[in-house]
Amino acid sequence: MKITLQDIARETGYSVNTVSHALSGKTDISESTRQKIKEAADRLGYVGNYAASSMRTGKSMTVAIIVPDIKNPFFSVVVHEMEQYFFGRGYTVTVFGTDESAELEREAIKACRLRNMDGIIICPTQKSRTNISMLRELGVPYLLVSRHFDSFEDPFVGTDDLKGGYMATRHLIELGHRRIAFFNADQRISCSRDRAQGYRSALADADVEYDPSLIFYLSTTTQINSFAAVEQFFTDHPDCTAVVAFNDIIAFQVINFLHRSGRRVPEDISVIGFDNICDDFIFPLPLTSVSTSKKAMSRWAARMLCDMMRGEAGQHHAVLNSQLLVRETTAKPPKSSDTV
Amino acid sequence: MKITLQDIARETGYSVNTVSHALSGKTDISESTRQKIKEAADRLGYVGNYAASSMRTGKSMTVAIIVPDIKNPFFSVVVHEMEQYFFGRGYTVTVFGTDESAELEREAIKACRLRNMDGIIICPTQKSRTNISMLRELGVPYLLVSRHFDSFEDPFVGTDDLKGGYMATRHLIELGHRRIAFFNADQRISCSRDRAQGYRSALADADVEYDPSLIFYLSTTTQINSFAAVEQFFTDHPDCTAVVAFNDIIAFQVINFLHRSGRRVPEDISVIGFDNICDDFIFPLPLTSVSTSKKAMSRWAARMLCDMMRGEAGQHHAVLNSQLLVRETTAKPPKSSDTV
Repeated sequence: MKITLQDIARETGYSVNTVSHALSGKTDISESTRQKIKEAADRLGYVGNYAASSMRTGKSMTVAIIVPDIKNPFFSVVVHEMEQYFFGRGYTVTVFGTDESAELEREAIKACRLRNMDGIIICPTQKSRTNISMLRELGVPYLLVSRHFDSFEDPFVGTDDLKGGYMATRHLIELGHRRIAFFNADQRISCSRDRAQGYRSALADADVEYDPSLIFYLSTTTQINSFAAVEQFFTDHPDCTAVVAFNDIIAFQVINFLHRSGRRVPEDISVIGFDNICDDFIFPLPLTSVSTSKKAMSRWAARMLCDMMRGEAGQHHAVLNSQLLVRETTAKPPKSSDTV
Repeated sequence: MKITLQDIARETGYSVNTVSHALSGKTDISESTRQKIKEAADRLGYVGNYAASSMRTGKSMTVAIIVPDIKNPFFSVVVHEMEQYFFGRGYTVTVFGTDESAELEREAIKACRLRNMDGIIICPTQKSRTNISMLRELGVPYLLVSRHFDSFEDPFVGTDDLKGGYMATRHLIELGHRRIAFFNADQRISCSRDRAQGYRSALADADVEYDPSLIFYLSTTTQINSFAAVEQFFTDHPDCTAVVAFNDIIAFQVINFLHRSGRRVPEDISVIGFDNICDDFIFPLPLTSVSTSKKAMSRWAARMLCDMMRGEAGQHHAVLNSQLLVRETTAKPPKSSDTV
């Protein structure tokens, strides 16, 4: 009982050719005729043949979003915002989770090629540059979100992570902290390197000695990190009064650990995260965080990709400002540590 | 520079017809020949023409997942699990967020029809039955997750919410609570009605009077509910010592409010949620929750849809067991309330 162009032609009295041109948006049909034909098509329940249309136009009207971890609230908000933006413009969104695996990332890019995606937004694993080179060779509009390669050769939308790392650290220094740990993610990730550089700059500007043993590496994914390792860190560094965490998920893990081991936040130890997920979800403990403006970033990225898919040469780099949101997990260091 | 079947034929010495049959998996080609042709195709970088293949086979190898709110950790975990499952079986996943809007839901279903989705998994808004009837008429395999219609006529994978509501309430009664609020979601949602029914059954079984004024309706989406309304509720019900929350997101909002208004959890008021998101993310406050086994539910649903897409008549209903996870937000009521 599939409705065909013939059915619409019969219903409206126009030729099949006119109906076809009207529905495919060709400009040789007057607006009033197009309107009449479109109304009839809607009334009859015409849906067209997508595969045929895709073959004809070469467009799939589908955009791919490839992210390390859809579960991470940062990425779930990004996917949510982008999906809303694209769907409102006629594109559906196919998601791929790489779980920080270069192999899954490669498979996702191959699937994008096979399925003729019109555009691709990716937060790369950065395990190697090879996958992104492969992506580049597809000749399909793409852009990187959140993470960049040093060469900055790819279209990119992200945040000023260097400034973010600087602000987080300076905030703690201004409160009086000197022994500040950095619970960072894998250094292959640009955000990790940039935030660490900001951390070091802030220490240097305040004449606080940089101690590499205060840098502690954790997993970025939402998987649970080892409590034993965190315990060992605090045993080794009893004078540490503050933690900069790579993201809010890690910050919450650290706070959970500190509570369990009898330390109070922020009275004994201050903790600051990144991503500002407390703006999207209400949690019992409002977390001080560097906001990476997920919504603005998602909209910028989606808009830039739309421009690229339309063949418009526009801005291909956007580094958004970050902002420090002081909430309830950072405070002055405890009195005893002032004398250290 | 697109690689064609001709290129592979030239490279291997087989005919274009043989190459085509080998690559499309037809059984008239010997395994060793197929292997040689496939190797050559991979070496040359042949990717096929997806739109053409889709037209020929009628398969898009794409599955749609339609959920109210991708940001909600419950759904982000569900999407994550399903994406992993489907991608491992050659399907890509297109996501749609309805934001609990019947109109966006209808648009999503129309997009599925247009794009020839092979299968559809939906957590319906339940604003009306019309959209699901439309979905049913597509003749495409589909199933409902988490929410069902009373008729149970659709394939469905979900949790025993009646039992969940019962367990949550009985847990609080066993701790000594009598004035137990239920911060529920919109009653159009089956989970909301089922959990409320479980709540009432548990009260009845324990001879605790059911007071409709203790039922308080909130938004299910991750949007922030009105603190003023919550304040009013607790002012009106000073004897309330425990809250069953529709989900963990609402439970966290309530706890946040209670902290701000100077009440302690669980010392003054106990709070229990649903969804067990503390199993996926570590939060500072481990929440007592009824677990709806997101992973098992996602896998069941994905597997059932795969069976249906292969035309295999299998199980079309699965109601999974729920489990009570007692953590740190529920305790005995404060002494003073014992005498009330």
